[in-house]
Amino acid sequence: MSDQNSLRLVTLVGSLRRLSFHAAIADCLQELAPENVRVTKLPSVGLLPHYNADVQAEGFPLSVLELGNAISEADGVIIVTPEYNYSVPGVLKNALDWLSRLPAPPFVGKPVAIQSASPGIFGGARAQYHLRQSMVFLDAQVLNKPEVMVGGAASKVDVEGKTVTDPQTREIISAQLKAFALFAQQRKLLNK
Amino acid sequence: MSDQNSLRLVTLVGSLRRLSFHAAIADCLQELAPENVRVTKLPSVGLLPHYNADVQAEGFPLSVLELGNAISEADGVIIVTPEYNYSVPGVLKNALDWLSRLPAPPFVGKPVAIQSASPGIFGGARAQYHLRQSMVFLDAQVLNKPEVMVGGAASKVDVEGKTVTDPQTREIISAQLKAFALFAQQRKLLNK
Amino acid sequence: MSDQNSLRLVTLVGSLRRLSFHAAIADCLQELAPENVRVTKLPSVGLLPHYNADVQAEGFPLSVLELGNAISEADGVIIVTPEYNYSVPGVLKNALDWLSRLPAPPFVGKPVAIQSASPGIFGGARAQYHLRQSMVFLDAQVLNKPEVMVGGAASKVDVEGKTVTDPQTREIISAQLKAFALFAQQRKLLNK
Amino acid sequence: MSDQNSLRLVTLVGSLRRLSFHAAIADCLQELAPENVRVTKLPSVGLLPHYNADVQAEGFPLSVLELGNAISEADGVIIVTPEYNYSVPGVLKNALDWLSRLPAPPFVGKPVAIQSASPGIFGGARAQYHLRQSMVFLDAQVLNKPEVMVGGAASKVDVEGKTVTDPQTREIISAQLKAFALFAQQRKLLNK
Repeated sequence: MSDQNSLRLVTLVGSLRRLSFHAAIADCLQELAPENVRVTKLPSVGLLPHYNADVQAEGFPLSVLELGNAISEADGVIIVTPEYNYSVPGVLKNALDWLSRLPAPPFVGKPVAIQSASPGIFGGARAQYHLRQSMVFLDAQVLNKPEVMVGGAASKVDVEGKTVTDPQTREIISAQLKAFALFAQQRKLLNK
Repeated sequence: MSDQNSLRLVTLVGSLRRLSFHAAIADCLQELAPENVRVTKLPSVGLLPHYNADVQAEGFPLSVLELGNAISEADGVIIVTPEYNYSVPGVLKNALDWLSRLPAPPFVGKPVAIQSASPGIFGGARAQYHLRQSMVFLDAQVLNKPEVMVGGAASKVDVEGKTVTDPQTREIISAQLKAFALFAQQRKLLNK
Repeated sequence: MSDQNSLRLVTLVGSLRRLSFHAAIADCLQELAPENVRVTKLPSVGLLPHYNADVQAEGFPLSVLELGNAISEADGVIIVTPEYNYSVPGVLKNALDWLSRLPAPPFVGKPVAIQSASPGIFGGARAQYHLRQSMVFLDAQVLNKPEVMVGGAASKVDVEGKTVTDPQTREIISAQLKAFALFAQQRKLLNK
Repeated sequence: MSDQNSLRLVTLVGSLRRLSFHAAIADCLQELAPENVRVTKLPSVGLLPHYNADVQAEGFPLSVLELGNAISEADGVIIVTPEYNYSVPGVLKNALDWLSRLPAPPFVGKPVAIQSASPGIFGGARAQYHLRQSMVFLDAQVLNKPEVMVGGAASKVDVEGKTVTDPQTREIISAQLKAFALFAQQRKLLNK
């Protein structure tokens, strides 16, 4: 954990596409975060193999251990994800499936904020509520509001420039990060 | 498609563990199915890579095409799955994420039955409703009832023998297969 | 049931407000429906008392019996509803809670289409998936697509005129009614 | 709010039946709660009329104002509910629909614990996740674990004696109340 005056947040991206909306949003979060908050990206969920209990029985893959450690050391996790088939992308869910089996599951008590984006109107909203249900099992502390669901992402996010261009979207993301920083700071106090 | 007097159903297993409850149930379905119904297992969802739009742009992997074809040719799909983290296993969802992108998405109008099993009380119930939400997007025809949720699976399924041992569980699975055969037969009629 | 060449659909409105978006949409459905389809409104869900098993034990209220009969006689039900608190309005759910207890539950095998509307962006989408989950228990046959979720309803629906003014919204509703008429016609054939 | 050394929790019952499992569980909570925790029952949700925006426009009914005040003054809310049609009872949801419209919505930031019970195996589990989704909109702080889902309630709850008889059920309820007291105490500290 970081010292009391600063927060270390990490982002978990739910898409593997190199120039995705989600990678671009994740890359922009440091810029939009309050002072004293450091935001870094977690290793790609694409590095983990498919979850398989037989593989687990032979020992957790290094990629799982590393992702778990990085989450454990953070003060909070920001998940930035697309919606696939009205739910959470399989590849992101697969990472949660591994992480939940670790001897010290890293999401327990961990502050989590969710951001989704899609080319369509809903901005991935449907994925968020499924993700929240998994977070109950994982025993994470998920921020309620403001919710960030970036619809029509093609005109709001510059995937090449790795930045969010739409002023309103920047504002709502900033507002969430501010609320999340307070939320995570409170958890840090309580956990001491 | 098969001829009018018979039905060809295929099973999609949501777990990669070799001796899983779900593999054992899937292996037992032919035995529990009505006459004139042939049940075969689809290739493992573990053969598909993680979904990645950049990979898709270079052409669908052969494993995706083969799985898609096998589903397209079937009269119905039985999904047999565990529940991970109160939702659908990532590795199963990942297969759906690939299949939904195929030029002729194989679940459109396809009859689907869902079976889940778990060591705990609920038998994977929570995963089923998330799966059903994805099936709305995929435009599949999902059987409502009877629902098959095998709780306490350790005492009801013999993973080594690849069979379901509990009489009540065999009965409910048989009942679902019978209802599903009728349901799929009706779709076949309508599609002609 | 109506004769083979026509369909009788009924609408169930989830809001009690007199000049609601949902009442206006419901009033417009006949105009947007295909030929040979007759659409009529069901009695208001506000006429039913709160569900109470003690009341049920003394006999079903007349309002419940009448609503149940009207649904039983129809070839399909169109539910037009707002979203309250990210879910189904209590007053609409209360009607379902009564109807499900009837000796011959009227939603069993009944074709159902869902339309939602809201002043916000999502048009009530979140309510639809909760409603679909209840429909699994009720054993209804719910149309998958096209989904009708009217966001920004204030500029698309004329509550005084009781009509839908936005051309695109009229189109999507017409498209759903057309798909639903086919869907309900098929059920009618199968049920014979 | 109560003083620092004690907690005032209130229970909201989702069933109107006089001798329901849920009323009996609610009546037993004081007995199972930790010391320094006082548990009282809120007025019945059956006292509220159906939500109707036209009625609201003329002023909130007294029953809504009273329920809202009682929740506002409490340190936390325990919801004890059945599951109807795989979701939240309409009559309970209706109360939330009213409360969410109050000028000072009483669930904002409020600690909430959920308990459900049913005669069947699942103990109302499906209702809990729908309720949690509404609580995101209401901006409540919902306890993750332990979850209380009392299946087979007929052999575990004495509705006449208004008590929980099954030792294991008493234990899990006690464990939840203990966790919830800590959770609510922490919120109280943060809100100061």
